Amino acid sequence: MGITFLKGHGTQNDFVLLPDPDAALALTEDRVLALCDRQRGLGADGVLRVVRTAALPADVPGTAGSASEWFMDYRNADGSIAEMCGNGVRVFARYLVEAGLVETSEFVVGSRAGDRAVTVHDDRSVTVAMGKATVTGRSAAILSGRRYDGITVDVGNPHLVTVLDEDVTGLDLRDRPELDPADFPRGGNVEFVNRLGDDVLRMRVIERGVGETRSCGTGTVAAAAADLYAASEDTGSRIVWIPGGEVTVRVQADGATLTGPAVILAEGALDEAWWVDPA
Amino acid sequence: MGITFLKGHGTQNDFVLLPDPDAALALTEDRVLALCDRQRGLGADGVLRVVRTAALPADVPGTAGSASEWFMDYRNADGSIAEMCGNGVRVFARYLVEAGLVETSEFVVGSRAGDRAVTVHDDRSVTVAMGKATVTGRSAAILSGRRYDGITVDVGNPHLVTVLDEDVTGLDLRDRPELDPADFPRGGNVEFVNRLGDDVLRMRVIERGVGETRSCGTGTVAAAAADLYAASEDTGSRIVWIPGGEVTVRVQADGATLTGPAVILAEGALDEAWWVDPA
Repeated sequence: MGITFLKGHGTQNDFVLLPDPDAALALTEDRVLALCDRQRGLGADGVLRVVRTAALPADVPGTAGSASEWFMDYRNADGSIAEMCGNGVRVFARYLVEAGLVETSEFVVGSRAGDRAVTVHDDRSVTVAMGKATVTGRSAAILSGRRYDGITVDVGNPHLVTVLDEDVTGLDLRDRPELDPADFPRGGNVEFVNRLGDDVLRMRVIERGVGETRSCGTGTVAAAAADLYAASEDTGSRIVWIPGGEVTVRVQADGATLTGPAVILAEGALDEAWWVDPA
Repeated sequence: MGITFLKGHGTQNDFVLLPDPDAALALTEDRVLALCDRQRGLGADGVLRVVRTAALPADVPGTAGSASEWFMDYRNADGSIAEMCGNGVRVFARYLVEAGLVETSEFVVGSRAGDRAVTVHDDRSVTVAMGKATVTGRSAAILSGRRYDGITVDVGNPHLVTVLDEDVTGLDLRDRPELDPADFPRGGNVEFVNRLGDDVLRMRVIERGVGETRSCGTGTVAAAAADLYAASEDTGSRIVWIPGGEVTVRVQADGATLTGPAVILAEGALDEAWWVDPA
């Protein structure tokens, strides 16, 4: 048995971590596909390669001028590269602390979207700086023949947040929503939200290119920002209940933070023959 | 990190193996559910606990009079107990050989359905004795408003095998089939089959209580038995292509055997705190 891995999740958005400090692993698209395949591999929403920022080529976005010691090289389950993942970075940060690779509880994690400040709390939950969330206007989605009006929010990626009176738990979200291409030229995520109190939201989400997921970090930030906007508030915090658990979003003048659980449940090694030629 | 596990699959029917020679693990339904959960656990179709037959209580079905040294304690992903799993027993047998727990390539594995003779081949594929497959009559299933006529086969569990001229690859199998309760009082699996040649079948399967899966061991045996019956042959062999790979079924006078791949891709340890209280 050869290649070390860990399995973890943040509000049930789940990841395979591959410790690779010296950037020695040949993490091909085929291997990402095989690792994330839920029947023939370990199964995950994505792979988090744990690599020293200094070990990466200078042309990797986010490395130039980074203050990070460790870089989150994130791959989607389809083998593609993603810039950031708000749930993944929590799991990544917890791993760094538990493995003794960082010695403080506050540090920055490098990513293709730039450095992200994180704080690992005593209860192992993690707070991540998510950058600015900007309300950009109004739009609508059509899903299963029904129109959902909402607020558009940019959290580095595009969102439509629709607040409903009816319980979102009962919605049929198996189809893919149609978005207005003028507002969403590259598609977007759609959040379906109930207000459960002054500072508590229930949310379900359909992620662009994926379908419904149990959690979406940027989606929870978008939902909180949209709800603050509707209340004519610039700053504030919201607890967001999602199918995979509960997170807290704080919107401040200099950007939003996301606090939530990070779980690492297993550590092991991949069979070397399988790594060479995944069966 | 505490509890040892392995992850493997047989034609993409996937399993978490828990080595537990002395039957010391408290494998509760909650833990099976958490282990098999694909987001918050390791993810699998089922758990194979690897336990010495002699370490089990005498009231466990299949232990009394068993010639087996090792017993496959199989649990479905929903926490329930299943008697046997034709794909699981291949992975189980390969593990025993690779871990040095048996020293021959032919041996018997204990199960709640009784002892199963297995042969682990040099290429790591495994042949398993599946018992008798008995054609019992004709029946039909209704799926998405369409009627599928077929042959009923008992392989220890009940099957309806429907042979079609149109390519089964294109069928919409997202709904659950309705079976005649007179023929299937406890439900059954439905196999959709194309004949690709004299001894090659393509098959898709909807498993009772699960939905479509990438493989079903008893289903491939049922399909081969039904095809032999249609050709008025008592014995013979069929290669069966399933979405998860390829297996060979041999039907002989004393019973059927199933030969197919068995892959073990990872080994590791579960976090002890997670095992105590899965998050």
